[in-house]
Amino acid sequence: MKDEIVSAIRSAETALLLLHDNPDGDTIGSGLALYAILSRMGKRAILCCNDPIPKTYRFLPGWDQIRKPAPERARHDLAIFIDCSDPDRAPQCLESLAPHGKVLNIDHHGTNTAYGDINWVDPRAAAVGQMIFHLIAALDMTPTPDEALCLYASIVSDTGSFRFDNTTPEAHEIAAALLRTGMDAGLVRERLFENRERGDIRLLALALRTMEITRDGSIAVMSVTRDIWEEARAEDQAMEGLVNYARSIAGVKIALLLREVEDNKVKVGFRARGNYDVGALAAQFGGGGHPGAAGALLEGPLAEVKARVMEAAGSLLGCSDTSLVSLWDSTLEE
Amino acid sequence: MKDEIVSAIRSAETALLLLHDNPDGDTIGSGLALYAILSRMGKRAILCCNDPIPKTYRFLPGWDQIRKPAPERARHDLAIFIDCSDPDRAPQCLESLAPHGKVLNIDHHGTNTAYGDINWVDPRAAAVGQMIFHLIAALDMTPTPDEALCLYASIVSDTGSFRFDNTTPEAHEIAAALLRTGMDAGLVRERLFENRERGDIRLLALALRTMEITRDGSIAVMSVTRDIWEEARAEDQAMEGLVNYARSIAGVKIALLLREVEDNKVKVGFRARGNYDVGALAAQFGGGGHPGAAGALLEGPLAEVKARVMEAAGSLLGCSDTSLVSLWDSTLEE
Repeated sequence: MKDEIVSAIRSAETALLLLHDNPDGDTIGSGLALYAILSRMGKRAILCCNDPIPKTYRFLPGWDQIRKPAPERARHDLAIFIDCSDPDRAPQCLESLAPHGKVLNIDHHGTNTAYGDINWVDPRAAAVGQMIFHLIAALDMTPTPDEALCLYASIVSDTGSFRFDNTTPEAHEIAAALLRTGMDAGLVRERLFENRERGDIRLLALALRTMEITRDGSIAVMSVTRDIWEEARAEDQAMEGLVNYARSIAGVKIALLLREVEDNKVKVGFRARGNYDVGALAAQFGGGGHPGAAGALLEGPLAEVKARVMEAAGSLLGCSDTSLVSLWDSTLEE
Repeated sequence: MKDEIVSAIRSAETALLLLHDNPDGDTIGSGLALYAILSRMGKRAILCCNDPIPKTYRFLPGWDQIRKPAPERARHDLAIFIDCSDPDRAPQCLESLAPHGKVLNIDHHGTNTAYGDINWVDPRAAAVGQMIFHLIAALDMTPTPDEALCLYASIVSDTGSFRFDNTTPEAHEIAAALLRTGMDAGLVRERLFENRERGDIRLLALALRTMEITRDGSIAVMSVTRDIWEEARAEDQAMEGLVNYARSIAGVKIALLLREVEDNKVKVGFRARGNYDVGALAAQFGGGGHPGAAGALLEGPLAEVKARVMEAAGSLLGCSDTSLVSLWDSTLEE
């Protein structure tokens, strides 16, 4: 498989690299590293993303060269999708592929639809950055410290700094090799973990204050009403990871985060631990996701949506009393 | 150096392993792994700690065999101090050393006072667990999955899951080797990161609500009054890491956490980023620590202590306006 990729890259003169919409650290870091490699190989490469790069990642070397797709640009020999399980994750620009052009699909999602002319999908890879690391070696090149920094950022992002279940021995080994290039690891840590917006802190404080829990401690729920959202003066990215505070409480099996996005529209984030499938739970409400993490958009007032979701979550867990108590309630046993 | 350690361990029939007071993940994980190794080598070993093992670590294999020191116990050939920069970190039990007995000092603090008969101090090691990993190899043994789990927990604890500046390539390489034993990494992650007490969440919410910041954004302060502490119904370990929320705000150079421990007694935690030395700042108030992290205990009402510390912090930063504004203040620019 990799021979085919190496020769497709070697023979292309021009390449279009595509990041997925709503880009995260993995697609950005992987894309930037590969873009730098292609440039060093003398290719004319363009790196595109439909959406703006989140502030958090605006330190990765080359981030300001990521462009909005523009179909009128010169046609390319190769279109490389990075971290896209589906071409609709980056719905753009295939019209700018030359008639002889090929689609190369580099991804690590088990659900990848194999939409490329060449498909390289490795679900065991913690991050696509890990695959790009191998690709660079297969191209007989060595990552520069800047390229290593992009790849380290991609692995750190997708493993939650080596905390998620996808953290393999190989992820650690590649991290070690990247650090050995002399890259600026402090910069990655500083920007990814120590760079909260003021609105993030406000939202966290306000959302934690809403924490409710069942008497048996198995379900915890946070609610972000529109009032809270306004008081927090936060940006959308502040919502990321918030539900994990509910999931992290000892004894919690299912965590929910309800966000009132509009009047009578509530976005629900589901998280589970153990063997409970919240993907199936979200599907009951027209949503979807993985067994451990899923989401759905429900109609109705927040209180009503909460009651509906709690009933379903309770029946999944076999929890008979799904009434919720504030975490601040003094009658709550610890 | 290691030859001397290996032969001291090989020739000892009995050994006393000493964890430091107020034990953390590194001393506990390293101690348990070495204890297991000594036991497998047929030694009579005892593992001691003056203080109880925090709940968080009560999943590490063998944790329930850690005992309070009891000087009347049989005398030992070897006393091994683990992660103790000073013998006063574990003020106990040396009276139970046999007359021929030796003190082995295994540590990674640069400030270690070399108090042992044999001193093995490696300040480049992210955690003592990393040193024990090498020691096990030098003893021609291979860690079992349970021993690997203890060592992984020690490295994860002392590097903040590979987020702190002490995270070296070697820390990642050893982590990879430990994971390759087939150890239960999910258990470590679950217990160290996803096991918050309810009081932790309450304290976090209440403490974040007190966040204040200077107009120039360089100093952020959190205050835990006695009222807040009572409302939170938290345990002391909930304070750990709290100040990092202040430090993590974009632009903050010095972060302070004030905790009213008694009437007119305020414990101040200092954190810095960049090249500001809060160790020197804390020393002005009779405290101490490292350039990046320090603490002091001050007398006076909280508001007064805050004013004194803010003046000193402002003068360190050259910040002329040290008046504080609540993070919720609507006149605060983002």
